[in-house]
Amino acid sequence: VPDFANLTGQIYVLDLNLSIAQDRRPGYLRIAEGLRQAIQSGRLKPGERLPSCRRLAGALGVHRHTITAATGELVAEGWLEGGPRRAHRVSAVLPPDFFRSRARHAPPRPQKKLKWRLARGAGTPHVASGDSADPCRYSFSGGGPDLRLFPYEEFRACMGQALRQSPSRLGDYGDPAGHPEFIERMAVYLRRVRALTGRRILVTHGSQEGMFLVGQLLLRPGDRVAVDELGFQPAWDAFRAAGAELVPVRLDGQGMVPEALEEALQRHDVRLIYLTPHHQYPTTVTLPAARRVAIYELASRRGIPIMEDDYDHEFHFRSHPIAPLASADPSELVIYASTLSKVMFPSIRLGFLAVPQALHQPLADLRTVVTRQSNIFLQEAVARWMDNGGFERHLRRMRRVYQERRDALVAALAAGRASGLPLDWTVPDGGMALWLDCGGDSDLVAREARARRLRVLPESRYRFKASHPGTHLRLGYASRTLEEINGGMELLLKSIAATTSK
Amino acid sequence: VPDFANLTGQIYVLDLNLSIAQDRRPGYLRIAEGLRQAIQSGRLKPGERLPSCRRLAGALGVHRHTITAATGELVAEGWLEGGPRRAHRVSAVLPPDFFRSRARHAPPRPQKKLKWRLARGAGTPHVASGDSADPCRYSFSGGGPDLRLFPYEEFRACMGQALRQSPSRLGDYGDPAGHPEFIERMAVYLRRVRALTGRRILVTHGSQEGMFLVGQLLLRPGDRVAVDELGFQPAWDAFRAAGAELVPVRLDGQGMVPEALEEALQRHDVRLIYLTPHHQYPTTVTLPAARRVAIYELASRRGIPIMEDDYDHEFHFRSHPIAPLASADPSELVIYASTLSKVMFPSIRLGFLAVPQALHQPLADLRTVVTRQSNIFLQEAVARWMDNGGFERHLRRMRRVYQERRDALVAALAAGRASGLPLDWTVPDGGMALWLDCGGDSDLVAREARARRLRVLPESRYRFKASHPGTHLRLGYASRTLEEINGGMELLLKSIAATTSK
Repeated sequence: VPDFANLTGQIYVLDLNLSIAQDRRPGYLRIAEGLRQAIQSGRLKPGERLPSCRRLAGALGVHRHTITAATGELVAEGWLEGGPRRAHRVSAVLPPDFFRSRARHAPPRPQKKLKWRLARGAGTPHVASGDSADPCRYSFSGGGPDLRLFPYEEFRACMGQALRQSPSRLGDYGDPAGHPEFIERMAVYLRRVRALTGRRILVTHGSQEGMFLVGQLLLRPGDRVAVDELGFQPAWDAFRAAGAELVPVRLDGQGMVPEALEEALQRHDVRLIYLTPHHQYPTTVTLPAARRVAIYELASRRGIPIMEDDYDHEFHFRSHPIAPLASADPSELVIYASTLSKVMFPSIRLGFLAVPQALHQPLADLRTVVTRQSNIFLQEAVARWMDNGGFERHLRRMRRVYQERRDALVAALAAGRASGLPLDWTVPDGGMALWLDCGGDSDLVAREARARRLRVLPESRYRFKASHPGTHLRLGYASRTLEEINGGMELLLKSIAATTSK
Repeated sequence: VPDFANLTGQIYVLDLNLSIAQDRRPGYLRIAEGLRQAIQSGRLKPGERLPSCRRLAGALGVHRHTITAATGELVAEGWLEGGPRRAHRVSAVLPPDFFRSRARHAPPRPQKKLKWRLARGAGTPHVASGDSADPCRYSFSGGGPDLRLFPYEEFRACMGQALRQSPSRLGDYGDPAGHPEFIERMAVYLRRVRALTGRRILVTHGSQEGMFLVGQLLLRPGDRVAVDELGFQPAWDAFRAAGAELVPVRLDGQGMVPEALEEALQRHDVRLIYLTPHHQYPTTVTLPAARRVAIYELASRRGIPIMEDDYDHEFHFRSHPIAPLASADPSELVIYASTLSKVMFPSIRLGFLAVPQALHQPLADLRTVVTRQSNIFLQEAVARWMDNGGFERHLRRMRRVYQERRDALVAALAAGRASGLPLDWTVPDGGMALWLDCGGDSDLVAREARARRLRVLPESRYRFKASHPGTHLRLGYASRTLEEINGGMELLLKSIAATTSK
């Protein structure tokens, strides 16, 4: 520890010894504190002149910049005057008492800690969780893509091109509704594969931000939103965040029951209907044409917007996917939402809304306030990937892979049924999961499976009111290899057998 | 146009001729529509068998997949039964009337378009706008970084590494609060340069999302937020989005006047104080120690949180930047927000909050509902860039460049003052802009400059109530080269001279 006594003929007992030894803050802050204490304690008097930076640095054994940083801090705080080229002096008028509480050796003033008042209940949100977070041996809990098969090298090249070409334009603030090049590609793609026309696209941070924005824009506290009684809970959270209350509507093996919806609309002043018509989440069933028609007509007659979440239409194995409600929307009441989380990977955080013209500007304005815009380089990279055919090539490949996996899953389940287990399912035409009726309490089965280090999610996890247990499991197969499917299903069949025999 | 007559012994007058010629939808949808019309019009009867896909494809001159797509659509809609390996037949029970409205030749049913009811006024948000959007010859309206000087190649390499290393982990869903590797680097950095300790970091999409989240979490409709009477309007929008009302507090040449704040707190039930203490936005002045102390003590005594927006502390030229309020926060009431928009580029959309422990989980929960999480690859790439020293190297370089530019700006203004113009300013110690008193109505000067294709923003643009015109301009110099500064200032001095002489 250096000796500060008699430096330049003045006595500096800066009490730095202890501070330097015990304090883990940056050196300049420790020195500033020593000087501050010396001033506060009166050892350095107002108007008194400090030795030069160079001399202080030499005496304290630190770099000159450390001293200038310390004195700069004290000038800013009002303890010192002068500098950077003039000598520093202790300020003629010292700042008030406050900084004393920062001093290490002054008794800390009793400070009352703020008691936070939150404007909303901090309810635990429902999380769309990834596969990699799951420490189980086999997990079928994720409904997501196989991240091991994404062509990162291809995408890296597109990202590299984006960062090379007019980088300062792409790095800047841009249109809050999204990067025009990305929007254009996406519009062409949606027109071709989903027959969407006459809509405006708004890029969002995943479909989650899209649902949140729609909730904020359309819902007032106490408004009702009709949802499937089994559904996608992160969407429910988004609507609840706007203060809305959910009205669960009965579901059967073909999706939402129109008569049940009609009854709900008669009973409640419903302001939004949330649907996943293509592959109902979590049951994977496609809403049949007659029901789609009936539900659309109910909404149209009552003037209620529909939010259509078309989250994994890309993966459909039988002929062609059905067209979304938004493709035939004469009343212009459908808000279409989708995402690249399934086609690419969740952490890309690129989703979009395709909305009727009237809704575009209000949503873009709101989006500006929430997150301003999305990363433009990412959007440009995806646009390039779409241009060079990589996007569709990846889709085609994944469609084959996922179909093969679905078939393997079905074969494994069929073997289980053949062996006498009370299993039942409808083979999903697409999507990334299978909805299995395991013939008994699926909560029990999931627990039993967990004990075997297999993770599957029971029906109750998706249910609005988890009052009765249910007999279904959702098996996310898309991200699992054939080996994992076979291994996992072996464990699952054992778990079901064990539960049934209890 | 192919001839559909007598195909396989049946008569198909599908009316496809016109549709194919005039319809711009995908081929399969046009064919589906032709078939649908044939069914609706009764030309194809329930139970009737269609020719094979192959034959239809040959007759219509399209690929077989186009036919399977069309029939798949009609099966999904309920018009056809059978397939994919069995022959298609017209459904025994046809779906209801709805799809008729999609048919091109049926008279469109009069459809009432939805009248949207918005839950919030769609006020035009204030936009932090970029430089590249501005078509002027010279623009000093952006307070942002020089995007031409960002080392995109360096960052591209980091992004490439991130996309190569455990890509499936980084592509997945992750912690909504942010990527641990990024948070760790950022915490070390903030401890070193801002003396921040004992806080939890939450990654956001720019500081905008941070302000939005804080507004949503802490403010109820009608709550008051104290702000500088001249300030950062996108933050105001974020608080207003939560239904809050703003209370403007008087500002002088040293920032917010504590006595004015005290008066505001006595008059209104203020629930949040929003400050930019380091470089007040837009006046660039550093809030002096005595005022920081006074404001903190006011907030502490009344139990009011402070949101401290520390948006460009990295660029400070005189000795060392002052420490933020959050670095000495015994009452744990300061919410610290910052961003990489100034250090890197705005479209990266990486900002963060550093908050007291108690606020972290509620904010992370809310964040989950709003946007779920940020792109993990981007966070990993920045973490790598911080690790390899690129981040700080870039900062050091930019600090030199911006200081040089500030000096050039000040020299140009000094020349103007020497030539007799009534200019006044305080040389900013840092930041990216200068607050110029041009001695007359700055709205007029800005208009006069605009006519000379120079863009500068007048005081009124930042003012809570634009009642009186004001004499200041904000000159964002950081993104302008020395040539641009000299050229721009020449035009500005002319504009001021022209306005003064009027």
